[in-house]
Amino acid sequence: MADEDRYVEDIIDQDDNFSQWYNQVVRKAELADYAPVRGCMIIRPYGYAIWENIQRFMDARFKETGVLNAYFPLLIPRSFIEKEAEHIEGFAPELAWVTRGGNEELEEPLAIRPTSETIIGHSFAKWVKSYRDLPILLNQWNNVVRWEKRTTLFLRTSEFLWQEGHTAHRTIEEAEERTLMMLEVYRAFAEEDAAMPVIVGRKSENEKFAGALRTYAIEALMGDGKALQAGTSHNLGTNFAKSFAIQYLDADGQRKYCATTSWGASTRLIGGVIMVHGDNAGLILPPRLAPYQVVIVPIWRNDAEKTAVGALVERVEKMLKGKVRVKIDLSENTPGWKFNEWELRGVPVRMEIGPRDVKNNSVMLVRRDNRGRESVPVEALETHLPTLLEEVQQALFQRAKAFQDQNTHITGSYEEFKQIIAEKRGFVRVKWAEDSAAELAIKAETKATLRVIPFDQPEGGVKGKCFYTGKPATCEAIFARAY
Amino acid sequence: MADEDRYVEDIIDQDDNFSQWYNQVVRKAELADYAPVRGCMIIRPYGYAIWENIQRFMDARFKETGVLNAYFPLLIPRSFIEKEAEHIEGFAPELAWVTRGGNEELEEPLAIRPTSETIIGHSFAKWVKSYRDLPILLNQWNNVVRWEKRTTLFLRTSEFLWQEGHTAHRTIEEAEERTLMMLEVYRAFAEEDAAMPVIVGRKSENEKFAGALRTYAIEALMGDGKALQAGTSHNLGTNFAKSFAIQYLDADGQRKYCATTSWGASTRLIGGVIMVHGDNAGLILPPRLAPYQVVIVPIWRNDAEKTAVGALVERVEKMLKGKVRVKIDLSENTPGWKFNEWELRGVPVRMEIGPRDVKNNSVMLVRRDNRGRESVPVEALETHLPTLLEEVQQALFQRAKAFQDQNTHITGSYEEFKQIIAEKRGFVRVKWAEDSAAELAIKAETKATLRVIPFDQPEGGVKGKCFYTGKPATCEAIFARAY
Repeated sequence: MADEDRYVEDIIDQDDNFSQWYNQVVRKAELADYAPVRGCMIIRPYGYAIWENIQRFMDARFKETGVLNAYFPLLIPRSFIEKEAEHIEGFAPELAWVTRGGNEELEEPLAIRPTSETIIGHSFAKWVKSYRDLPILLNQWNNVVRWEKRTTLFLRTSEFLWQEGHTAHRTIEEAEERTLMMLEVYRAFAEEDAAMPVIVGRKSENEKFAGALRTYAIEALMGDGKALQAGTSHNLGTNFAKSFAIQYLDADGQRKYCATTSWGASTRLIGGVIMVHGDNAGLILPPRLAPYQVVIVPIWRNDAEKTAVGALVERVEKMLKGKVRVKIDLSENTPGWKFNEWELRGVPVRMEIGPRDVKNNSVMLVRRDNRGRESVPVEALETHLPTLLEEVQQALFQRAKAFQDQNTHITGSYEEFKQIIAEKRGFVRVKWAEDSAAELAIKAETKATLRVIPFDQPEGGVKGKCFYTGKPATCEAIFARAY
Repeated sequence: MADEDRYVEDIIDQDDNFSQWYNQVVRKAELADYAPVRGCMIIRPYGYAIWENIQRFMDARFKETGVLNAYFPLLIPRSFIEKEAEHIEGFAPELAWVTRGGNEELEEPLAIRPTSETIIGHSFAKWVKSYRDLPILLNQWNNVVRWEKRTTLFLRTSEFLWQEGHTAHRTIEEAEERTLMMLEVYRAFAEEDAAMPVIVGRKSENEKFAGALRTYAIEALMGDGKALQAGTSHNLGTNFAKSFAIQYLDADGQRKYCATTSWGASTRLIGGVIMVHGDNAGLILPPRLAPYQVVIVPIWRNDAEKTAVGALVERVEKMLKGKVRVKIDLSENTPGWKFNEWELRGVPVRMEIGPRDVKNNSVMLVRRDNRGRESVPVEALETHLPTLLEEVQQALFQRAKAFQDQNTHITGSYEEFKQIIAEKRGFVRVKWAEDSAAELAIKAETKATLRVIPFDQPEGGVKGKCFYTGKPATCEAIFARAY
């Protein structure tokens, strides 16, 4: 990579142009790159290492709830996709079609999976015979393709990586319980592992998944006041079970349709982490997801210093091995260059080791989030660093939570609503009568969409009128401009 | 799953029909299933858990050598695939083509990756400027599609999961060193983690990768005497660098072409594990790769016994948590049924806990590989089980190694060669003059292919004549019928 690509000074301020800032951070921190195929991305090692950490934390949370991983095929026959009416209507415009294989035209075109409800439904129908075979709790980590017109790295690309969970149950109530359980897994992952506060709730009829009975989501607020849907969980009721004949013999001797669920989160989470935590110097990574939690920058002016500093660096490296993920920057760049570089790349803690530190048997630690500096005795590092990293993790969450609170506006007036959406953005919380036509009108007029009907509703129900229609409100809803 | 699908008695003996035995084991142990798309497979949770363990061990070995993971797109423009002449010739008949996306015909068809040298070569060309950017050491875990006419679960399917490593270097010598280093990683994984002895060597010109300078492989011998290529490592020389203009400015001020490598191993390894270790009762899994290393079968006849046994099971479970992967079978089936079931599924050690064990404060352990039984005090389990599992791991390797040795034949006569291949199979080791035409003739006449020219050659070089052409031999080679 040529040096000029890496000047930190090149990054635009967030306030001047947030989306340009985002693109520069993604490219200069070497997280991802556009591929030579329209709308597809290359996830570079530093970005992929974040994804590996996301997978590790999320996968452990799935498995704790009894979910097992599996793998279903990439290619789905057209006839499968067409079986569930709302599903095909929702996905048809986004499908990529394989029409030739092994030098021959295929009799039936195969879609590259945009999601796998249909092909998994087909297997469930084969596997389920009796109520004793239920529930089935599966997940797969894979790639999907949705032909997108406008793309942004991580946020919306024609191919992306994700996990899609699929379960089958005896009753819709049991499916609902699982749907909400997985939503809670997403919330816990987002808030605890990604330090990303989220609003948890139900999607409106307009925004629900194609073929679902109910869709739930976690919504996060980005640094520019736009919302990002960071994970969704769907109760599919018996819709897919009826299309794919997923039936079981119940204890009462009756044949019944299963209820199924699906739930997904994707590499878009990486985009969320960038936009929630980053600042004008670049990326800020939460310690749990950071490829490197600590970067060591050795400082010397001559060979004698180099030997002494090198020895201490080696000692520290050995001491921290297996406890903290450490990167040692031994490149030929100047220390100042390295400071900028690793700030841009968002490493949570920088450790400076120079001749004075060798003399004092200490090191200098600098936090990425608030630039706090402290000199720490070498012997204390082993216990101090994990604690410090946990402090940074918590501080990032608290800061993002405060930002979300400050940027959540409450209004009863559509005029004020329009002004907030146009000028301040953020989440706007309103009383709402659940009217789909009104929702579409608001979207057409303001570009704001109904993000969620949050679980957190006023005790004793909502009183008063819908801010838009004036009809009696049935709930409070959160609107925002969204990615 | 209906009961009749699970009767162990249904499995055919290996000697009667090995390929039928294989298919029955794969299906009845619930490792994989054919998908409704021709030639594609569904990897079920029990099979996928083996793959997760393969990934974990192999990925750690890659990372120890400095390799980082990344992700490149699924879809490759036709023009890319056509850039390397031998490459397109080799892969053209196996490609699946996307010709429509988002309701429009594509201007240029996109191939689903059969392997990613071309699209990664394109990125390497963008990323590499100077010798300081080298080496680049990347790997990706992904899915690939090769349109196959005849398929077998795990061994040959139109879509499969694998890892493909790709590296770029200053010189062909450095690339050669990396090629051999990754081959050694595959050998160590196969022998130490999969307990699968392999022959390590170079492929002939006929058998090398389309576009490679040299291909190396590890070859394992299956229970029916056929060979399985279990991992390949390619020195691509400057072939792909020249097609994709991967150039760097060297320290001497000259612009030079990089040398690149690629290396891959796939879900076919699961097929290898089945066919190397399995017996007439079903699967035998090496402890390192087994989803469950120990299965606990509780035995009781009445409620009092159930309570006592249940308490001990719980105590043992807690004791082993995080140390050994344990499955407790609490289903309603009889103990005898469960024994058969978990033998079929290859769990390395069965633990029986009944009323007498409760009284003695001990458990009964039964090894899957040799059915050896021993009663072990509960307090000893924590240290005894890991040792026992390691013993089983070693025993499986030793048994497979002895089988390989017994089934490696040496001959100087083509008549005898033909007889061995037709009747006994196994590896056949011969003196060889490296003649491509002769190699093709042997294949046409006997269906045996040259598996590898092993690294293990006679000291001081090979003396004597080629077993087939009578020309002066240049090496010893290993032939076999192969999957």
